[in-house]
Amino acid sequence: MSEGKIRRPRAETPKGFRDYFGAEVTERKAMLDAIAAVYHRYGFDPLETSAVETVEALGKFLPDVDRPNEGVFAWQDEDKDWLALRYDLTAPLARVAAQYRNDLPSPYRRYAMGPVWRNEKPGPGRFRQFYQCDADTVGSGSVAADAEICAMLSDIFESLGLAGVYVIKVNNRKVLNGVMEVAGLSGDDKEAERGIVLRAIDKIDRLGEEGVRALLGAGRKDESGDFTKGAGLSDEQAEVVIGFTTAKRETGAATIARLRELVGNSAIGAEGVTELESIAALLQAQGYGSDRIQLDPGVVRGLGYYTGPVFEAELTFQITDEKGRPRNFGSVAGGGRYDGLVKRFTGQDVPATGISIGVDRLLAALRAKGRAGGATEGPVVVTVMDRDRMADYMAMVGALRQAGIRAEVYLGNPKNFGNQLKYADKRGSPVAVIQGGNEKAAGTVILKDLVLGAKIAESATLEEWKDRPAQVEVPEADLVAAVQRMLAK
Amino acid sequence: MSEGKIRRPRAETPKGFRDYFGAEVTERKAMLDAIAAVYHRYGFDPLETSAVETVEALGKFLPDVDRPNEGVFAWQDEDKDWLALRYDLTAPLARVAAQYRNDLPSPYRRYAMGPVWRNEKPGPGRFRQFYQCDADTVGSGSVAADAEICAMLSDIFESLGLAGVYVIKVNNRKVLNGVMEVAGLSGDDKEAERGIVLRAIDKIDRLGEEGVRALLGAGRKDESGDFTKGAGLSDEQAEVVIGFTTAKRETGAATIARLRELVGNSAIGAEGVTELESIAALLQAQGYGSDRIQLDPGVVRGLGYYTGPVFEAELTFQITDEKGRPRNFGSVAGGGRYDGLVKRFTGQDVPATGISIGVDRLLAALRAKGRAGGATEGPVVVTVMDRDRMADYMAMVGALRQAGIRAEVYLGNPKNFGNQLKYADKRGSPVAVIQGGNEKAAGTVILKDLVLGAKIAESATLEEWKDRPAQVEVPEADLVAAVQRMLAK
Repeated sequence: MSEGKIRRPRAETPKGFRDYFGAEVTERKAMLDAIAAVYHRYGFDPLETSAVETVEALGKFLPDVDRPNEGVFAWQDEDKDWLALRYDLTAPLARVAAQYRNDLPSPYRRYAMGPVWRNEKPGPGRFRQFYQCDADTVGSGSVAADAEICAMLSDIFESLGLAGVYVIKVNNRKVLNGVMEVAGLSGDDKEAERGIVLRAIDKIDRLGEEGVRALLGAGRKDESGDFTKGAGLSDEQAEVVIGFTTAKRETGAATIARLRELVGNSAIGAEGVTELESIAALLQAQGYGSDRIQLDPGVVRGLGYYTGPVFEAELTFQITDEKGRPRNFGSVAGGGRYDGLVKRFTGQDVPATGISIGVDRLLAALRAKGRAGGATEGPVVVTVMDRDRMADYMAMVGALRQAGIRAEVYLGNPKNFGNQLKYADKRGSPVAVIQGGNEKAAGTVILKDLVLGAKIAESATLEEWKDRPAQVEVPEADLVAAVQRMLAK
Repeated sequence: MSEGKIRRPRAETPKGFRDYFGAEVTERKAMLDAIAAVYHRYGFDPLETSAVETVEALGKFLPDVDRPNEGVFAWQDEDKDWLALRYDLTAPLARVAAQYRNDLPSPYRRYAMGPVWRNEKPGPGRFRQFYQCDADTVGSGSVAADAEICAMLSDIFESLGLAGVYVIKVNNRKVLNGVMEVAGLSGDDKEAERGIVLRAIDKIDRLGEEGVRALLGAGRKDESGDFTKGAGLSDEQAEVVIGFTTAKRETGAATIARLRELVGNSAIGAEGVTELESIAALLQAQGYGSDRIQLDPGVVRGLGYYTGPVFEAELTFQITDEKGRPRNFGSVAGGGRYDGLVKRFTGQDVPATGISIGVDRLLAALRAKGRAGGATEGPVVVTVMDRDRMADYMAMVGALRQAGIRAEVYLGNPKNFGNQLKYADKRGSPVAVIQGGNEKAAGTVILKDLVLGAKIAESATLEEWKDRPAQVEVPEADLVAAVQRMLAK
């Protein structure tokens, strides 16, 4: 590996990327394993596509522009084709569903977990590489497939120990389309207005009814004085839209009844309401109550491609934000039905529905609730008192490992014994094993209980620890058993 | 997601990349989990770096060239810095060890597993994205760290069920350097010759002693008539090099003795021999016999950056190659000591040693030996006889899942019942559940044993199956218990 330049390279993670160490890796793995177990039980099969896709397959060319859309990391290969890192797991699924359509079972039910990449401005907590964890059913137009996604999400939260602190909200784009129709916003020439309306509805939690009303009408000036142009709806039109976003009632049945009023004669709207009703009935039959899954017309989901039911999972417990104010933890997963994605490739309608879990946010939630498994204790450290007897120390460590105990011999420069104990401390080691010349001659080893030692160091009085020594000397033959006893305490 | 163009995108994996389905994913995961368990037991902590690195950190600039070296996928970010996908897990480790040197424990012991990317010509079985699985100790110059890597590799093979069909070979670059010195090839002006010698030695398995001799001398013409220029060594020089590659003896001690003769007065050579001797002694003390780990001066390892002990793990069982000839399965892991990598960043010497396992090759080996775990049975499929009773079917599937049984309701168009059974077949489903109007009225369900059904279909005579019906009708309340009985058979 030639350096090429005299100047030394900077040792830096690229801007917007980060490294994950130790428990950060194992905790995420434990969570993904638990989620995969639920996906598996529901009959979904794993799929792992490559990180790299053709930009063409990702659909990231803007009209009339011959460079990839911003938002992806892209480059040209030797044949001048543009390649890019995937920015989600849905676009690769659409490509796979089209590419292997003659070989895959239909419906094709797959889960996928792995990193995705976004070429966006990084910010605090916003990285350019992050994990997603998706499950989708491709090739089923049945609302049973949508209901199942919601049930599965619920099971996932329960299995992660989040029972009682989550809610899965279900809405339907068709109902929204019906409302647009009733409000006179369904024409092809009204696309800009519909976009503004969608974005306005999506902000109801943050802006409240009044803020949304302003955005539906002439526009809204925010606290900083910035003005956002509104959709220019009349008061009557705005009333219909607001009516939709506030249609949620105490029970699913009451919400359904209210939505039916709102969509009036719109055929698409009525279809959407019927679908929501079916989903609610299917979930009811399986015992998923409205404490876990509920109809909520306030849920819009940003992405343009949803065509039917949409889902959003929120965690309802409170955390303190960066300014010390309590707020709900909020959304950790979202999804819905998107019947147009595979059609891009094949020209044929292929209905599909699915969910994407925001892995980093969900993991942060588990940590906040003390539910993140996978953190592990450091290794037992066998210290080196006499570097010529490395073979003895390695034999000890070998015996410990044989017994399934995580252990290692100190491999740094053994000269300074204090450094060895500092190392054990930094590794979170529970036990240090020591054998100097005296112990060797006596056929013994010394075991230092570092967990207890740390407690004693913290404690004001030694009184409570006096009958439990932080250090014992045992025959070398008892090494494994004695360490096991110390670890079991 | 706008299409932008009328022409439909091609649904294709980019050239040289591939998708992994179902068992391909779970088998690899099971293997990596087993390897991670051993790494963990040895005290290594996980590290997951981002897939993207600065090209500068990767060291992939050629001297006097301002574009990244071929071999990596690279692009310029908005600040015109070059970024690239990592091509291995060692370069990112060197960057991490330098970047976090004040925070990490020293020695820093980490394992890493994940995809790496090579911008190379793809070929059969040669992909541009593949998995590696590494463990390294950074900050230890002790040969105990090298010995440990070998012991750990051995434990990994044993834990994967490959006892008796692998061997780990150990050599030392310093011995080779000593041999170069004895052969008069140690000067700075001899770098080209040393390169040719290294590559020649690396080919001894394939070309035999005579072929290597030709490459050490004037050169070699291969079967196709192509000529490879040799190192131009004299017969005496070639003799020394050949002596080294053929220095392996029956026992480690005899090999050591022979190597000591060969390196003569070379100080670096003598140091290398002593290191090999220490490694052998440490492994001996832990009970790793020469049937598992052996000294083998034939091992060179391609990469230029190794500075001390080098390791190579080979699987010794035979497979048939594409032409039907038996051959040894061969190398599945390699590594060694590389004391210069971190120095690139910091200017300070940081000794390091480690191993990289070729995940795809090792997985292929496990499959060849029938040792790949993680393959899973398809889901129980609840068929849909009456689409208006979807809630009933979903309740059944819910009950099965509650009992931990992998199950799903058929979500495609239920019109054609044959398609439902074909689907169950394609999914490798063990049991199909059927409830039509008659069964509903009778309060029963029909269970079709698809595993047994397939056996009966294959069998010439029904005689042997006659007392074991492939289909039973049970009360609906017994659904879960009856499916469990069928799965347990």
